[in-house]
Formats: sequence, structure tokens, C-alpha cells
Amino acid sequence: MTDTIIKIDLNKSAYEHDNVHNRWHPDIPMVATVKPGDDFIVECFDWTGGQIENNDDASDVRDVDLTKVHFLSGPISVEGAQPGDLLEVDILDIGAFAEQQWGFNGFFSKQNGGGFLDNHFPEAQKSIWDFNGIYTKSRHVPGVEFAGILHPGLIGCLPSREMLDMWNTREKELFDTEPDRTPQLACLPYAETAHMGRMKGDERNSAAAEGARTVPPREHGGNCDIKDLTRGAKVYFPVYVDGAGLSVGDLHFSQGDGEITFCGAIEMAGWIHMRVNLIKDGMAKYQIKNPIFKPSPMVPKYDDYLIFEGISVDENGKQHYLDTSIAYRQACLNAIKYLTQFGYSEAQGYAIIGCAPIQGHISGVVDIPNSCATLWLPTDIFEFDIQPNANGPVKHLDGSIDIPKAPDLKS
Amino acid sequence: MTDTIIKIDLNKSAYEHDNVHNRWHPDIPMVATVKPGDDFIVECFDWTGGQIENNDDASDVRDVDLTKVHFLSGPISVEGAQPGDLLEVDILDIGAFAEQQWGFNGFFSKQNGGGFLDNHFPEAQKSIWDFNGIYTKSRHVPGVEFAGILHPGLIGCLPSREMLDMWNTREKELFDTEPDRTPQLACLPYAETAHMGRMKGDERNSAAAEGARTVPPREHGGNCDIKDLTRGAKVYFPVYVDGAGLSVGDLHFSQGDGEITFCGAIEMAGWIHMRVNLIKDGMAKYQIKNPIFKPSPMVPKYDDYLIFEGISVDENGKQHYLDTSIAYRQACLNAIKYLTQFGYSEAQGYAIIGCAPIQGHISGVVDIPNSCATLWLPTDIFEFDIQPNANGPVKHLDGSIDIPKAPDLKS
Amino acid sequence: MTDTIIKIDLNKSAYEHDNVHNRWHPDIPMVATVKPGDDFIVECFDWTGGQIENNDDASDVRDVDLTKVHFLSGPISVEGAQPGDLLEVDILDIGAFAEQQWGFNGFFSKQNGGGFLDNHFPEAQKSIWDFNGIYTKSRHVPGVEFAGILHPGLIGCLPSREMLDMWNTREKELFDTEPDRTPQLACLPYAETAHMGRMKGDERNSAAAEGARTVPPREHGGNCDIKDLTRGAKVYFPVYVDGAGLSVGDLHFSQGDGEITFCGAIEMAGWIHMRVNLIKDGMAKYQIKNPIFKPSPMVPKYDDYLIFEGISVDENGKQHYLDTSIAYRQACLNAIKYLTQFGYSEAQGYAIIGCAPIQGHISGVVDIPNSCATLWLPTDIFEFDIQPNANGPVKHLDGSIDIPKAPDLKS
Amino acid sequence: MTDTIIKIDLNKSAYEHDNVHNRWHPDIPMVATVKPGDDFIVECFDWTGGQIENNDDASDVRDVDLTKVHFLSGPISVEGAQPGDLLEVDILDIGAFAEQQWGFNGFFSKQNGGGFLDNHFPEAQKSIWDFNGIYTKSRHVPGVEFAGILHPGLIGCLPSREMLDMWNTREKELFDTEPDRTPQLACLPYAETAHMGRMKGDERNSAAAEGARTVPPREHGGNCDIKDLTRGAKVYFPVYVDGAGLSVGDLHFSQGDGEITFCGAIEMAGWIHMRVNLIKDGMAKYQIKNPIFKPSPMVPKYDDYLIFEGISVDENGKQHYLDTSIAYRQACLNAIKYLTQFGYSEAQGYAIIGCAPIQGHISGVVDIPNSCATLWLPTDIFEFDIQPNANGPVKHLDGSIDIPKAPDLKS
Repeated sequence: MTDTIIKIDLNKSAYEHDNVHNRWHPDIPMVATVKPGDDFIVECFDWTGGQIENNDDASDVRDVDLTKVHFLSGPISVEGAQPGDLLEVDILDIGAFAEQQWGFNGFFSKQNGGGFLDNHFPEAQKSIWDFNGIYTKSRHVPGVEFAGILHPGLIGCLPSREMLDMWNTREKELFDTEPDRTPQLACLPYAETAHMGRMKGDERNSAAAEGARTVPPREHGGNCDIKDLTRGAKVYFPVYVDGAGLSVGDLHFSQGDGEITFCGAIEMAGWIHMRVNLIKDGMAKYQIKNPIFKPSPMVPKYDDYLIFEGISVDENGKQHYLDTSIAYRQACLNAIKYLTQFGYSEAQGYAIIGCAPIQGHISGVVDIPNSCATLWLPTDIFEFDIQPNANGPVKHLDGSIDIPKAPDLKS
Repeated sequence: MTDTIIKIDLNKSAYEHDNVHNRWHPDIPMVATVKPGDDFIVECFDWTGGQIENNDDASDVRDVDLTKVHFLSGPISVEGAQPGDLLEVDILDIGAFAEQQWGFNGFFSKQNGGGFLDNHFPEAQKSIWDFNGIYTKSRHVPGVEFAGILHPGLIGCLPSREMLDMWNTREKELFDTEPDRTPQLACLPYAETAHMGRMKGDERNSAAAEGARTVPPREHGGNCDIKDLTRGAKVYFPVYVDGAGLSVGDLHFSQGDGEITFCGAIEMAGWIHMRVNLIKDGMAKYQIKNPIFKPSPMVPKYDDYLIFEGISVDENGKQHYLDTSIAYRQACLNAIKYLTQFGYSEAQGYAIIGCAPIQGHISGVVDIPNSCATLWLPTDIFEFDIQPNANGPVKHLDGSIDIPKAPDLKS
Repeated sequence: MTDTIIKIDLNKSAYEHDNVHNRWHPDIPMVATVKPGDDFIVECFDWTGGQIENNDDASDVRDVDLTKVHFLSGPISVEGAQPGDLLEVDILDIGAFAEQQWGFNGFFSKQNGGGFLDNHFPEAQKSIWDFNGIYTKSRHVPGVEFAGILHPGLIGCLPSREMLDMWNTREKELFDTEPDRTPQLACLPYAETAHMGRMKGDERNSAAAEGARTVPPREHGGNCDIKDLTRGAKVYFPVYVDGAGLSVGDLHFSQGDGEITFCGAIEMAGWIHMRVNLIKDGMAKYQIKNPIFKPSPMVPKYDDYLIFEGISVDENGKQHYLDTSIAYRQACLNAIKYLTQFGYSEAQGYAIIGCAPIQGHISGVVDIPNSCATLWLPTDIFEFDIQPNANGPVKHLDGSIDIPKAPDLKS
Repeated sequence: MTDTIIKIDLNKSAYEHDNVHNRWHPDIPMVATVKPGDDFIVECFDWTGGQIENNDDASDVRDVDLTKVHFLSGPISVEGAQPGDLLEVDILDIGAFAEQQWGFNGFFSKQNGGGFLDNHFPEAQKSIWDFNGIYTKSRHVPGVEFAGILHPGLIGCLPSREMLDMWNTREKELFDTEPDRTPQLACLPYAETAHMGRMKGDERNSAAAEGARTVPPREHGGNCDIKDLTRGAKVYFPVYVDGAGLSVGDLHFSQGDGEITFCGAIEMAGWIHMRVNLIKDGMAKYQIKNPIFKPSPMVPKYDDYLIFEGISVDENGKQHYLDTSIAYRQACLNAIKYLTQFGYSEAQGYAIIGCAPIQGHISGVVDIPNSCATLWLPTDIFEFDIQPNANGPVKHLDGSIDIPKAPDLKS
């Protein structure tokens, strides 16, 4: 029986757990030790540490404190791991807790984090997704059910001191170009809500003041939100500190490419079963800077798609130069508009492309001035036919159900 | 036996063909007429109209005249098609000509068009790819062979007058923000080398002066360079003029997502077999602005991948804000660097990820400030094992073969 | 939290459980009731009810009492189900118990059950397979690891009285054609070891005397051993009695087409999560005699295969007429012989094609006198390359490890 | 430009071509020579040599002379090939002739060849299938269209003298067990219609008297009718004579597993592009008796299936012992019956499962006394939804179109 080396208690605050942290720092103490070849289980909070509830009120999404995220389980020390090695991680399995077979997807208020389409969806909304074995569906988004591709949104090893400094420097430089922007350009260190694991006192305080926030993906992996890092996948992580210091969290039941709604997957608490091995001096041998990985042999074969294109001309008709993010945003908007013809609200459309295993492809990046991005919407996740035909679309939903919204509070 | 409604003669210049054009304009005369339900074959020049030859000298790539591209076959009138309809196009088959079973991939000089990685590959290079049935390989890139996903890089219907004006306006506005830039920010109309099909005299001249260049993808589709628009796929194009005016060209034997080398696929001359149908008033019925499409049931199952990540920190360590193009560029550079460990030159690595059916995914677009993009490199296209292991990589190539380069001429 | 409607205690005998039975009979009392639309969990013994242990001694396989198998959990009553309906069953998930993450594969002695290749493997052997998340490997079969396609080997509804009589009649007729044969031609009712669930006394005794054995698949489904009936699949079962009476057991972690070793999959105890619905009068509406099903969207994409052919000429060179079983047996023997060239024992080869997700295809059934069957061996389950090349095979195993054997006892 | 080393003229009889033969014999003279590494094109008659026409009259199928089939192109000599080698054949591409973009499927009369379901379809019927690029559909079978998996039904190397003798001996022994049976148990040598290629005079006559018929698959491959031997596949053939003597024919546009209708695929004339290589002494190195092969990376992903089961109880309710052919026959009959509920005639159902890329799996071969076979019917080949639901099936066809039948002539 596989050991669960990090256990959590959902009834207690994440801050009460010393095997959890929410910042990246080289000095966070290891909370468990494993050997190459070992497999083990790690329990994880949802990324917000339980701030979001299974109900029909989106005010918890509106009011979420984003300085507290993401709560990660770890760091785990791997015997023999040294800077320059590659840590090979087999993701053997992932699951929700038996007593909490549900997850949530949220749109953050533009005043508090926002998301990829926050100009179109400026206020907080929340959908709850129930898990039925390998499948999920939502009482807030009728007519769609699909198999999850469970994955950790966030996983990686502790940075070295040099790497941490580099992160802080470059992000501060960006932040400083427009310090008053909302949403802000970067999430800088913030000591108050930092959870530094087992660090205490002054040591904790000084580390908290410089600990890197967990929001962006970086060289070590981190918050990559790659939907394909699922059970069965194998990842090679760069190692920067002795013992590697592997941490993981932000489990997702499913997500589309881009994690477009920011609180963007079907977020859940749960456990992950992993196995680790080392490739000594692997970073130099393979010239690896960012993690590389191999996909699982086990993925849903939703391979009939309806594919939407977008180019880098924005919603106002303005031409941008090879901007792939704008191109993808247009593809997203085109898909949402299309779905409304079948009876979905625009918010439901947004949730679907955020939660379901849609693909986002970079189709053309050289045909000046337009990038071309494509959004691949799997047709088999719908309970009705969404393909075009000569008769036109059929409205399958009557609009009586929508995704709960929590308007911004007047200040 | 299916009719070939547009025939070309590779021994004559594209300019001598009045069933070919290289600009978009609503008034280009139709060169053939078909009915809904018809299937038919169209022959096409390669996108440069034969400027590139099957040899080991890249000077033709260096010296290519990009104001002449792309040569398109058409426009084809579809009976009954009216503005607002959707033109359903089944791509039934595509092939190279029996007497020309090869294609080319090129890196343009940064002085003349450039490409996605032109800072790293500033000078012209060219690789030739031979076709062997469904497979291709190159004498310039040993150790790799794969099945093609043949597709037209460029296909779409004629724009309306209003659409043409909109294109010209917005692209000029962008161009004017930095008019002296190299490469330029947009390709503006250029009358001299315009081929306006059957238009003649003053009519031709005034249309040539405003005909939109074929380089960027736009609302009508156009130069989308979507590798998955292959035989078996079905596309729904917006119709803007009576008769639709379908034109097609820029056939590719294979391409990776992004068409990163600009002359970026394995480019070829050949033929395409299509079938057309109409969805009357389909644009409004389905709220379609850009084309949508369904992939073919027939695609190579190269589905064991090595996946490279990139984030929006550039080669100089500078932090950018959610810039997916930069993130994808980093993923490309990471993949190229990795391949060099097996003996490839960097240029060969660049050609591989440009030509082979790699995927480019938009993995994260909300985790400020870093976008995350992934490049999916299929491992089965290599004749040797490229997966990481504890022993480190084996150099399978001795460096004796590389991709021909033509240095920029001194001016 | 989903209800577990049938719970078992692995520390007690299956005979002590009244929610379990090992014969088919219309009068076995229902042990639980569900409604259409409900989802629920059912716990199951392994098919032998715990006769086989996790050790290196195959005597338990040799001595297994096959009159006791298979222990099924149920029957479950579905409200409103009537004869002639179709019972739609969604298999939502399947798992091994946390405390028993292993399974077994056995070859039965030809004196006691035998198997598909019992002339080649006449004595009992056993391999133990450990589960690591979605993967399994065996200490008795080195060099191979693969993701499971978990499925119930045996599932179906209670037969009607008429159907039971028909089964007993036709099987007895076959048995009587060669009553002394070993192995026997059919498994006839056998009261002594029958477990009739909650039936007691005379009623139990008379039912036990006619209860159909669970070994063969029949019109209701039953012991189909179809490897693709996995989590995510949907099955439509004919209903023959009021309430349907769904029973299930014989869980497998993985199996190849044909379940060729008889104790032929990786057999395990565990649980299955299902959802039921009804198609009223579905048998007539769809003219369904045997169950039909839809595969899961979630299956391992081991789709690079080495494919072995067999024809209906037997091991002695004798020509048979379109005998597909003999053709498949030859394909199996060809695959086993091939694997020995890489260092496997023949027994290990037999276990691999029994346990791994190999496919068995009926390739030709009309080209007199030879059927052609093919065995599709996935190459990606091996840790080394098993593909042919000009240099010949490399022996990766030194023969030091083999599958434990328990010779027949002398009588 | 690849050489076409065997050309045929469809306007002349196959018997007038000396680069064609219709029997297997070691002494048939080579008609072309290639070297290892060469790729080349071979043209082929349809298997009947043009006996079947594109019309609505099945009398040609009824009256076909089966002693004349199959017309094979070859044999081709491979330099350096010796008995004991493996001949590696890459199938690079296959196509129909531009001027003959159609094929046929036939049910033979039970009086003349029969087929897998000849008790149910005792009289000759014929459907014509038109090719549209990668797709095919039939005017005789509405509502179904699919991409072809083109393959040679028949391919292999010349037998040695010893192998030929063995074939003739064992087939004669089988034939003699029931010499008056219709259909016969085996096709014995028949000199009159034998086409022995370039053999002449007495030599031809004595070889014709012993040349093995081409109907069954045998150790060398031959008429395997494996639908997956398609463009992109790689096959390893045993070599029995100096030069190997590769012959090929019986091209199919598409076929289901089992080729159940005997004239069972969509049969066509056309060409095949191949590349050959040698593995010296490969038969011993890999212990290979029958050909082995690797599937193409390029296959249609029709992977949503409706799966029908069959067990070895025949149409009359009689129990057979582990007879997989009977089990598959029941699965076929179940699928046909199901399709009739949507408006198809039984003959159309039979044609669909013969022509479309259905799979036939050997699901269980050990659960005495019932084998279990499954027929996997891809749902995406139909223009309407054929999946079961609570409302019951919709008749999409009105029965006005059926497959032409030619009743047996009264004798």
C-alpha cells in the first residue's frame, strides 16, 4: 500500500498545515523525504485553500483573496538530487477526495484578478461541476458532460537563490512600467499572507518578504496549467537546490488549453500519486532550461472537433502585429458566439471553453501582420449536435439556467 | 472522372495564366463555375510560382520576390452563392504532380521577409524534401521521415468592397506606426507585381493598386496556414460576393503549427480535389465571422510526443506581459537546443519543427505575467530514440550534412 | 458522496456474504434497489473469491476449485425495469481496493480447466501484477509496464426461466456429445458449491441444482471478458425479469482480446461505480438479442503495434476449414515465439499476450479453407525496442526470472 | 519520378499480360528486378481481371469464374534476396486509376463461392462504390460515406517447391473429407484457367497443374485480406526462393475485418507504390513463420463505435464449442438486424459491414463452451445518428433503393 507522505485536513485552514506553502523560496524546509524509484501519494488543497464553496452564490469568487494562493503541498526532498539534475516525475494517478466529488470554475471580477476575457465578463461568476467517476457535468451548464483529464495545475522544484532573485528582478521591472494598472502587470512578493511552511520567526519573515508568488509559470515549471500533464504523463524538472524540493498543488479535474477563465479549470482538492527518479546532470546533458514532458498514453479521444479561427485584429477592429494572445481571444469569442446559437448564455460558453478539454493551437505566427490561432471544440462533449447544417442551429436550452453572478460591490 | 476546372502549365510563368491571381479584390473575374454538390479538381502553383528550385543552393530563397506571392488558382464561382451564405468546402484530396514529387522549406533572410526566429537564423537557407508516397524525407535533414498532412496554406473567398477597404485601412494604420521597420509591419498593396487574373487595362491597374496582399490570414480565411485543413477536412467559409469566388493555393505537403520558418511548410505545386455546398444565410444563422472547420478523419497518429515549454521571458531575460508569441518562440528555441544534443545543427532543428507535424499549444494565457506555450514534438518521426534517459543523449549525426545557406549579399 | 450499495469484507468468505452469488437463476433475491438515473458503487470479490494469493507459489492456481466461480455482486433491482426493456449501464469508474493494489494472472492445469494454449502450457503457473496508479507491472515478467483498461469480466442481468431452461438444454446437449472429455465441453449446473445469495433451504437447493454456471458468455452478456467494457463505456443489456437483476464481478485490471490464459486477465478484487437508465421496450425497438455497447472515450493510445498473423492450419500442419480459433491460436504462438528472441520465456510471452491490451482481430473468414486472425501487440508497453531490424534481436532478459509453476500432483 | 515497373492495360485481358499470374508456383519467371532500398510502382487489375462492371445488374457477380482469380502483378525479383531472409516492404501509397474511380462489392451465389452469410444471402448481389478523393459512397447504399483504408488484399512472395507441395497436400486432404460439398472445402489446382505469367508450353502446363490457387492466405501471406495493410504500413515477408518473387494484387479501397462478403471489400483496379529492403536470415533471427507487419501512422480515426456481441450458439440455437467463426457470424447478424431498424435492407446492412472499416475482435476464446466475438461498427460513417436512445430508432431510409440482385439461373 502506497504511503501518503503529505496528508491534509480539509477542516483546518491551510495556514495550520506546516506541510503546505504558498510562495517559492529556496529555504522552505523539506517536509518529507523520498528516494529515487519511490512512489508516494500527496494530498492537496484546492488552489484557494477552501475559499470557494459548493453553492449557487458567486460572492466567494468575487471576494477571493488572491494573495493567499496557491497552496502547495511540499517541498519534498529527493535523496541524491543536486542542482543540474533532472527530476523525472511519473504522475501515476490523481483523484478527488471521496467525500468531495465536485469542483468549481470561476470568472474573477476585473477588479480582482480578472481573466482572459475580462472585458467581456467583468464580474464574478461561478459554476459547480459534479464528478461521476471519470465524467463531470455542471448544474449551471446543461447539456455537456465529459471525461476529465485530471492534472496538477502547479508543480515544480524550489528555485535557487539566484533564480529567485532573477524572477523578482525581472517581474519588478515589468511591474514598474505601469505600477497602477488593474489588473496589475505582475504579482510581487507580499509578506503578510505568505505561508512559508515550517519557517518561523525572523527567518520566515525575511523569506516571506522575498518569496516569489505562485501565479506565473517560470523556468522551474510552476503554474503551467498544462492540461496534458495528466495521470500517466512523465515530466522532467530542472533541479536547483539540494534535494530538489518538489511541491505540487492546484489540482484540476479538467481544463481547456489556456485556462482562459483564470480560475480557469475545474478546480478541486484531492491527491496525487507520483514516482520520482533522477537523471544526474541532466540539464546540461539535454540542454534543458524549462521542464519537458511526455503525455500520458491515457487521454480522452474526443477527436471530432469544430475549429474556430481568430486573427490578431481585436474586438474594435484594430490591427495588431502578430499578437497571438489577441488571435486566440478572437477564436474564443467566435466559439462563444457560436454556442449562443444553441441556447447557451455567453457565460456558459465561456465556462465550457475554460473547463472542457478544448485545444488552443498556434496556427500561424509569421504571416504579417496577423497571427492565426485556433480553438478546437470537441463536439462529442455535447448531448446534442452542434455541427453546422443547412437548416441552421436548434436552440436546445431555454435560458432558464445560467451561471450565478456576484456583481462587484459599490465602493 | 472528375473535371479539372483549373489547369496550369508549370513550364509557363504564373503571370501567363489568367486563371491565377496574387491579390484579393472583389472584382477579379471568375475563371470557372460550379454548382452546389459538384466536386472538381484545381491545379496550383507553389506559392512562389516556381521561384525555388530543387538544388543545394539557397540563393533563390534569399532572392525571392515576396511582392509576387502567393499565386492562387481561381476565383471559382459557385452558382447561387450570395453574401451572407456559408460556403461548405470538402477537401477531398490533395497531391503533388507526378513529375514533381518534391517540395522545399526555406528560411528567409531577415532583410527579405524574415521569419519567427530570424534573429537566430538571419540568413537564407533551404532544404529540399522528397516525397515517397505518403512519406517525406530530406537529403538536408537526415534521420527523420514522416507522413504528410497535405493542406492548402491559403484558401478563401473574395472579399467584398467594404471588407477590402477595412483591411487596407487597418493595415495601413499599423504600418504607419513604424513605416521604416525591417521586416515591415504589414504588406501594403503593390501594383507593379500584382496579378489580377483576367482583369486588363485601367480596370486592372486601379484594382492592382488596392488589391490586398495575400500574406496575412483575415476574416475570409486566406493564408491561415492551418496544418489540419487536410484531405478529408470540411471548411465553412463566409461568402461576401455573388458567386463566392473561391481561390486556393500555397499547397503544403506538411507543416508544423505556426509555420514558423515563414517559407515555413514543405511547399509544393500540385492539385486539390474539392466539393462545395451552400448553407444559405449561414453567417447570421451561426454567427460566423471567421471560417470554421472540421478536421479530417484521416491524420497521422504520431501521438507520442516530447513536449517543450516556453514562457514570455525573452532570450535576453526580459519579462513580457502575457505575450504568447514570445512564449512559443522560447518553446521553439528549447526544442531546437534539445535536438542539437543528438547531432542536428540548429538550422536542421529549425527546419524539423517547421516542417514536421509538430503541435503548438497555447497552454496558459492568464497567469500573469507569463504566458505558457508548448511545442509538441512527435518522437516517432525520428529514426532513432530522442527520449531522455539516465545515460544522456547519443549523437546520431556527425554534422557532415547541413542545410544550404546563402549569405546576404553585401550592398 | 455516492452510495456503496453492496459492500464486501475480504476477510470473510464469499459464501458468508448474502449479497453475492455464483450462479445465474431468475429467482435469486435482489439485494439492493436503485432508480433509473441513479449512480452507485458496488464492491466485488475477485472471481475466485480470494483463492489466489500474492506470493510466488502457483499451487493455489493449480488447486483452484472452479465450481465455485465466479462470485458476483448482486442482483440489483432497477425500479420499473421489465422484460423487453434495455438497461443502459454507464460504467463510471472501477478501482482496486487501496489495501490490495495487486492482481494475478494464471494458467490453469490442463487437468483443471486448462486454457487456450493448454497443450503448450499444460501445468499451472501464476504471475502477480502490482498496480502503480494507472500502470501495472509484474515481478515475474520484467521489462513490460502498461496502463490498465479496467473492466468487469462478467456483468449482466438475471435470465428468465425460459432463458435459463434454454441454456441448460443446449449446453447439456453439447456436453453429452463427449461427456468424458477433459477439459469438459461445458460446465453444467453443480449444486454443491452453488452460492444462491439470499435463497435458503429447499428453495435454494432446487435453484442450485439448475442454476446456470457463470463461465460462458450468453445472450444476457455474462462472462464476456470484453476488455473494452471499461470506465467510460456504456452498455445496453437486455432485461428478462422484473427489476432486471443486474449482477457484476470478475474485475480485471487489464486483459488482451480473447482472455487467452483463461484465468486470463489481471484478476482483482475492487469496486465499480455505475449509473443505470432504461430504454423501455428497447429489445424490440432495436432488435437486440445480445448486449451492445459503446467504448469509453478514455483508452490507452498504445497504437504502434507489431501484428502477427495466424491461419487455420494447426501446430501439426493439419488443414482446418475456416476455423478462426485455430487461426488465432497460431497468431498467439507466433507472437510468443517472437518474444522469446528478446529473452522472454514462452510462459512470460503467454502471460504478456494474456494480460496486456493486445488486440485480436478476425481478419479473414471467407478465403477457404484458411481463416486469418491477427494478434496486435503494442510495442510501447515494452521498456526496450522489440521491432525487427537488420541487426537482429537483442536479448534483454537473462532468463533468471520466470513465472512460478506448480506441477500437477501425481495421483 | 518513381518508375512504374509493371504496367497493365485495362482494355486488354489479364491473360494477354505476361507480367500477371493467377497461381502460386516457385518457377513463375520474374518480370522485373529491383534492389534493396528501391521504391517503385506496380499496376494491378482488380482481382477478377475486369469481370465486374459499373452498372446495376448483378449477373456478372453471379456468373463470375472463380477459377480465374486472383490476377496478381509480378513476380518481382529483389536482388540479393535468399530463402530465409525477410523482405521488408513499405507500402508507400495506393490509388485507383484516374479514369476508374469506382469499385464493387459483391455477394456470391451460394452455388458459386458463397460467403460468410451465404445461408442468409444465397443469391448474387452487387453494389457499386464511387470514390471521391479519400471518401467513398454507393448509390446502392444511401446514408453512409467514409474514408478508405486502401490496401492490397493479396501480397506475398513465391513459395518454395517444398512449401507448394505442403500446401497442395494438406488442402487436398481436407478437400477429400467431403469432396462433393458446395461450396467446396478447398480450391485445388486447376490447370485450365491458370495464368502462369511468362511460362509457356509443357513447362506452363505442368506448373499449371500444380500451381496453388490464390484464394487462401498461407504462410507467405497471400490472400490475407487484412484491412490494415494500408499505405504507410510496413510488412516483413518470409522469402522462400532466390529473388523473393514478390507479387501483389486484389486492391481494396476499403474493407471490414473478416472481408465477410467474400467479394468482400470494395474491389478495385489501381496501382501500388512500394519500397523494399532485406533482413538477411531474418526468419531464423526473429523466428518468423508468417508475415508480421506494422500498421500505418495514417488511419481514419473512426473511433466511436457501436459494438455488437456474438457467441457460439448458431442461428438455430445449437450450442457449439468455442467456435469463433460462429460467434462472429452472430455478431454480424446482430449488427445487420440493428441496421434494419433505421431503414436499411438486410443486404445493405451486409454490404456496410463488409465494406466499411468495421473491426472484428476475438473477445473471449476460453469461457467454455462459448466464444465471444465482437463487431465494432463505427458510428461516424453514417449521415444520421444510429445510437440507441429512449425514443427508439428513426427510419431514415424508405426502402426505395436496394442492392441489385441476380437470382440463380434455373438449371
